[in-house]
Amino acid sequence: MNATTPPTAAVIVIGNEVLSGRTQDRNLVFLAERLAALGIPVMEARVIRDEEAAIIAAVDICRATYTYVFTTGGIGPTHDDITSAAIARAFGVPLLRDPRAVGLLQQHYATDQLNEARLKMANIPQGADLLDNPVSRAPGFRLGNVFVLPGVPAIMRAMFDGLAPTLKGGPPVIARTISAFTTEGAIAQPLGEIQAEHPAVEIGSYPFVRAGRLGVSLVVRATDGAAVAAAAQAVSAMLIQAGAEPIEE
Amino acid sequence: MNATTPPTAAVIVIGNEVLSGRTQDRNLVFLAERLAALGIPVMEARVIRDEEAAIIAAVDICRATYTYVFTTGGIGPTHDDITSAAIARAFGVPLLRDPRAVGLLQQHYATDQLNEARLKMANIPQGADLLDNPVSRAPGFRLGNVFVLPGVPAIMRAMFDGLAPTLKGGPPVIARTISAFTTEGAIAQPLGEIQAEHPAVEIGSYPFVRAGRLGVSLVVRATDGAAVAAAAQAVSAMLIQAGAEPIEE
Repeated sequence: MNATTPPTAAVIVIGNEVLSGRTQDRNLVFLAERLAALGIPVMEARVIRDEEAAIIAAVDICRATYTYVFTTGGIGPTHDDITSAAIARAFGVPLLRDPRAVGLLQQHYATDQLNEARLKMANIPQGADLLDNPVSRAPGFRLGNVFVLPGVPAIMRAMFDGLAPTLKGGPPVIARTISAFTTEGAIAQPLGEIQAEHPAVEIGSYPFVRAGRLGVSLVVRATDGAAVAAAAQAVSAMLIQAGAEPIEE
Repeated sequence: MNATTPPTAAVIVIGNEVLSGRTQDRNLVFLAERLAALGIPVMEARVIRDEEAAIIAAVDICRATYTYVFTTGGIGPTHDDITSAAIARAFGVPLLRDPRAVGLLQQHYATDQLNEARLKMANIPQGADLLDNPVSRAPGFRLGNVFVLPGVPAIMRAMFDGLAPTLKGGPPVIARTISAFTTEGAIAQPLGEIQAEHPAVEIGSYPFVRAGRLGVSLVVRATDGAAVAAAAQAVSAMLIQAGAEPIEE
């Protein structure tokens, strides 16, 4: 990344439970929103199985393509937690029992509770920096541009809060949302013209139903605040022209 | 796919709003659960931007790798709905105004409401089969092994219900969930031994907090019901041995 290339990110959700439909992932939406606010747009996300080959393949393509990669899941004590070993393999470094991580677990668990399974959470790829877990101590880690986070949302969020100041963000994305009780089809043509006239902004159109009424939220996004303001103004004027009341949200 | 290869699926969620954190995706969890019940496990999912190159790349790799591919999002009337055109490009076929789709829209919209933007929803890749939309008529479509569905969850679900009988499923996955108020670290070692002794099943371990109490859900999954029963029995016995009460869920 150089000064003229804005940073980007990918999120890799690791877990069979998300792909079986057992679990509704909530980590992507959190990371996406927080990273966007830091000027680090998430460009893609992948949900993959707890399988070494799948983890290595996804991590390798994403770390070569994006400024930052965030993985969630698979760093606990059980047999299906294989993310740390797979990341070590992806980077070609050994997975070692990390004395710093052992020390953190010793603070959290009584000696007779710190069994071999829990000590597995201290197995960290060589050369990684540990990421603080203020909830239950077992750390995540950063290796190169890859941040390896747990899957439990509360712990993942706390860990992200700790690492966020270490990220080099770009200009933050400014978003304005203008909603109206109209339909996409009724405004699609003038909306497309506004998009064409304001190429510096990205305009998204998202239908909704509120209290039984159809509506559309129009989201104008860009890093250039003046461009966002101009496009948002054009969107509001278009909605009024179409007989709808623009509601800034 | 031949008789001995179970079918598989990938889900591609198309939409900047999911990657910006504005929208919590709810389509993957629905498709994953429904496809698993049909014996078509979702092996991976991707969330990508509304960009032609990203759509083509993801569709091409997934349709070559999996039995079925399901995309959601980007088939509405606005300028940011580019999925249909990108799928046509991926398959190397023209995107044409489809008379069948026009007829469906004519049933739904009054003549003076069926403007060019709405007619864009009748632009379908040549050779595609239409997928019925019982909610708002604008169809999805199937081209080869790729099913192109809308992003609005209620419409996507209704459309999936209609197409599901056309899928060739494999043996359905049988899952049993046994929960207990214990911790992953306390049972990880004997649980790993059970997984090793029952290689025909997949055992997942998912921690939870209920009413302030830590617990673990152990999920045993396989297509072989006898194998699932044997492994679930071993899990229950292990939990009792560990001083926890197994709760079948």
